[in-house]
Amino acid sequence: MVSCEATNQQVNRLKKMSEILIGIDLGGTNIKLGCFDSNIKLISKTSTPTRADMGPEAVVDKMAETIEKLLADRVLGLRDIAAVGIGTPGPAKYREGVIINATNIPEFKNVPIRRMISDRLDAPAILENDANVACWGEYVLGAGKGIDDMVFFTLGTGIGGGIISNGELVHGFEDNAAELGHIIIYPDGRLCNCGQRGCVEAYASADSTAKRAAEALQDGTKSTLKKVLEKNGEITAKDVYEHLTAGDELAKQITDQTAKALAIICVNMLHITEPERIVFAGGMIAAGDVLLNRIKDFFRELIWSLKAETVQIAFATLGEDAGIIGAAALARHAYQQGRLK
Amino acid sequence: MVSCEATNQQVNRLKKMSEILIGIDLGGTNIKLGCFDSNIKLISKTSTPTRADMGPEAVVDKMAETIEKLLADRVLGLRDIAAVGIGTPGPAKYREGVIINATNIPEFKNVPIRRMISDRLDAPAILENDANVACWGEYVLGAGKGIDDMVFFTLGTGIGGGIISNGELVHGFEDNAAELGHIIIYPDGRLCNCGQRGCVEAYASADSTAKRAAEALQDGTKSTLKKVLEKNGEITAKDVYEHLTAGDELAKQITDQTAKALAIICVNMLHITEPERIVFAGGMIAAGDVLLNRIKDFFRELIWSLKAETVQIAFATLGEDAGIIGAAALARHAYQQGRLK
Repeated sequence: MVSCEATNQQVNRLKKMSEILIGIDLGGTNIKLGCFDSNIKLISKTSTPTRADMGPEAVVDKMAETIEKLLADRVLGLRDIAAVGIGTPGPAKYREGVIINATNIPEFKNVPIRRMISDRLDAPAILENDANVACWGEYVLGAGKGIDDMVFFTLGTGIGGGIISNGELVHGFEDNAAELGHIIIYPDGRLCNCGQRGCVEAYASADSTAKRAAEALQDGTKSTLKKVLEKNGEITAKDVYEHLTAGDELAKQITDQTAKALAIICVNMLHITEPERIVFAGGMIAAGDVLLNRIKDFFRELIWSLKAETVQIAFATLGEDAGIIGAAALARHAYQQGRLK
Repeated sequence: MVSCEATNQQVNRLKKMSEILIGIDLGGTNIKLGCFDSNIKLISKTSTPTRADMGPEAVVDKMAETIEKLLADRVLGLRDIAAVGIGTPGPAKYREGVIINATNIPEFKNVPIRRMISDRLDAPAILENDANVACWGEYVLGAGKGIDDMVFFTLGTGIGGGIISNGELVHGFEDNAAELGHIIIYPDGRLCNCGQRGCVEAYASADSTAKRAAEALQDGTKSTLKKVLEKNGEITAKDVYEHLTAGDELAKQITDQTAKALAIICVNMLHITEPERIVFAGGMIAAGDVLLNRIKDFFRELIWSLKAETVQIAFATLGEDAGIIGAAALARHAYQQGRLK
């Protein structure tokens, strides 16, 4: 009898545990890994340096070993994995699961990362753009929970984006939709790293915030930031927001320019995919309510008068975990739709 | 035996004929009506003045009588109708089938047009934005045939739009997505009728083309268009394109400004929903290749250098029938998906 009970327990556990989902956030510096149950509840997570210089095989091996260890700590194994979601920076052929030429991981060229991970973990896997993955995470469990039409921006060194329309990510013809940092808002404006002029990224990324402040100082604008530049040899977006809180006028001007740029893309995205909520994530949101409120102020100034708009503008809530949460949730979504290979 | 054969014929005819689709393009001035078979092949069509002043009931009655006559001419009747598609200008609650406050049909306020038409024709019906309907027409049978990701602009008095993502129209949170004329391209630029500044509609509609030419003449710019203004008391977009062909420098500048504005939204839409093809329709495309080629020139100048882009920029091919074709095809699509009421 005892042995029979034990067997049933084992069977039940296996049945339950075979619904483990793995979320992988593969960045240029670190790989974040998370194990989740079928409700996307975090079981355990960890982070490990990417070390792309070791080559794709070694990176995948290390990733798999780390996941095995995470699972073993919870008396689980690779056989318990139902599906794996992987987020990576582009450009990539996401449908084919191949990293082509990732800007942040230059060592990975034409790497069939999905098949490699899928083979090594013996589980179906899905590859998706890292901003789309974070967008999906916020949509499922964060600032976009409960709504079906959402636009998402990551304000980091650059600006990435994701669009959810009627409950699905917008992928585009060749999986490169939602490159929202490269919407032109000031034709003939500041040069962007992408080669275009006047992209929102050139006005509202952390990188551009720092650059615009440094340029103004070089042009002779008076500011308490001048001492920071002299001491550190550079200005960061964080410096700008610290001096904004302290009442510096230049920091205020720089922040207003950022907020207006973000408000313009809020207006534009409202007229394009009509989201119920627009969510901002990334390092820049550390600026807090002072930035969020200015975006809302400019939005109200800029938006048409044809009808009242109820779109909500909000900051993300999942923080650094959005990537692994979104990857696991996307894997579940694809699994449920029978799209996983 | 003869009577039995006749009965079989009747049954067969009924079975076949009950797949008739009706496409209605309800505009402020005219109502266009078309009967189509299940392959969206036109059986017959007509146009009748809207006469919105008679009130919604009378308009629906006249519409139904016109359709009955169209069908009777082909030995068909209302019982042969499988589904009805209706395109109307917004704003409307399309999902509920109610015209709220159509700019072009001010007499129609809170009119449950879908239910009224559905009741009168005894067939399920669908209501959709007129630009979305024309977009769907081009997608199914015109310039967007065979592709799944498309962006569509109607360049008329104003600018409307439609977006097809992964084979479906993007509707947005409250069915007001794809108001593409109101994408801001020049913040603090020309005032648009919508109350915003710098909308693409303020730079690339027929109305704005005429206005910009008249303003330049008033500012003293020399042009052969001056005589047209003196003679007719106004300038039209058609005048601008005629004088462009004749080599007038102002007409060239105005057209370049139009083409650049349209190229900017092509760049932006490529980065947002990543269409395989961008299609322009409406009165303005009568300008022909001279306009299309300038849009393509500016697009190549403006687009990023991160990767080669293959998006096709083209003019619509269905002309005035896009509305009835799109409405009938959308009705079929909703019918096939079991979404019709």
